[in-house]
Amino acid sequence: MRATYEVLCEYGYAGLTIQRIAEAYGKSTAAVHYHYDTKDDLLAAFLDYILGRFRDAVHEVETTDPERRLDLLLDRLLVDSEDHRDLLVAILEMRSQAPYVDAFAERFQQNDEYVRYMLRTVIDHGVREGAFAEADAEHVASALLTIVDGARTRAVVLDDPDALATARRAADEYVTAVLLDEG
Amino acid sequence: MRATYEVLCEYGYAGLTIQRIAEAYGKSTAAVHYHYDTKDDLLAAFLDYILGRFRDAVHEVETTDPERRLDLLLDRLLVDSEDHRDLLVAILEMRSQAPYVDAFAERFQQNDEYVRYMLRTVIDHGVREGAFAEADAEHVASALLTIVDGARTRAVVLDDPDALATARRAADEYVTAVLLDEG
Repeated sequence: MRATYEVLCEYGYAGLTIQRIAEAYGKSTAAVHYHYDTKDDLLAAFLDYILGRFRDAVHEVETTDPERRLDLLLDRLLVDSEDHRDLLVAILEMRSQAPYVDAFAERFQQNDEYVRYMLRTVIDHGVREGAFAEADAEHVASALLTIVDGARTRAVVLDDPDALATARRAADEYVTAVLLDEG
Repeated sequence: MRATYEVLCEYGYAGLTIQRIAEAYGKSTAAVHYHYDTKDDLLAAFLDYILGRFRDAVHEVETTDPERRLDLLLDRLLVDSEDHRDLLVAILEMRSQAPYVDAFAERFQQNDEYVRYMLRTVIDHGVREGAFAEADAEHVASALLTIVDGARTRAVVLDDPDALATARRAADEYVTAVLLDEG
């Protein structure tokens, strides 16, 4: 997975080959093929790995205070990606292939469902505790993920170093408006 | 351009060839090559064409009432794309190639600048007229385009038929919060 990460960051999705992964991995292509039949199988496993890392990062968010917890989740989604610009480039290529590669579409859908569930849970929790105003948690979670996905796309397509910070600020404004009733 | 549109919708970016365009155009590949050296040259011209169409659609928005005008611009950006799902798929592929193809990066940046300028202008106008609250027009325009780009990405990657409607609703909530002071 580390070898895949390195090759993706250096060559992008189109330039990723089993040969290059084997070189980064320090083994033969046969050793790579032993685990993965095709490049897309390997990349599907890589998406599982990235999702697993994201889940681990989310589990480190230990606070149960809803406002603080939502804040930290949005940081994980928007601020932490700033250091991984090359990975964002490769992931946008894989995203654009989702209509053609079922294994990618499945992973992106699973990932989205998982993050939407996390957001919905903290929103519902905050509404029950009275920390947030009454809200359609499912819609708010989808709206926040629309901002996250927009930022990731814009960071890559427009090569805009401010895309994630702009989105972080917009997400705050949105949360204040729909969940915090005048903040 | 119509032939390019048809081929893109049917085969996507990766499946687009000069041969297929020539067939849809009803001419020889030489006739296509007379105008465009490469597939990417042709697609850069196609992006100019799409941008031109979008400008025409924007010019049809004749109202000068700021709130109504902003509403109609957001409809053009989010509602009107609903009928062009195949085109969204092909455009996301081209977007993902922007880091590798300068001609694409330029077009997407130009397009974004143009739309941001349109949004900024209507926001500034509304602020001057007192229809909108004081606001950082540049930030609000970028935030709205983050929502638009997120919706377009999600419509394709998650194959989510509600992605544009969710974003349209989120854009309304955002505009109400930052420009309308309690709607």
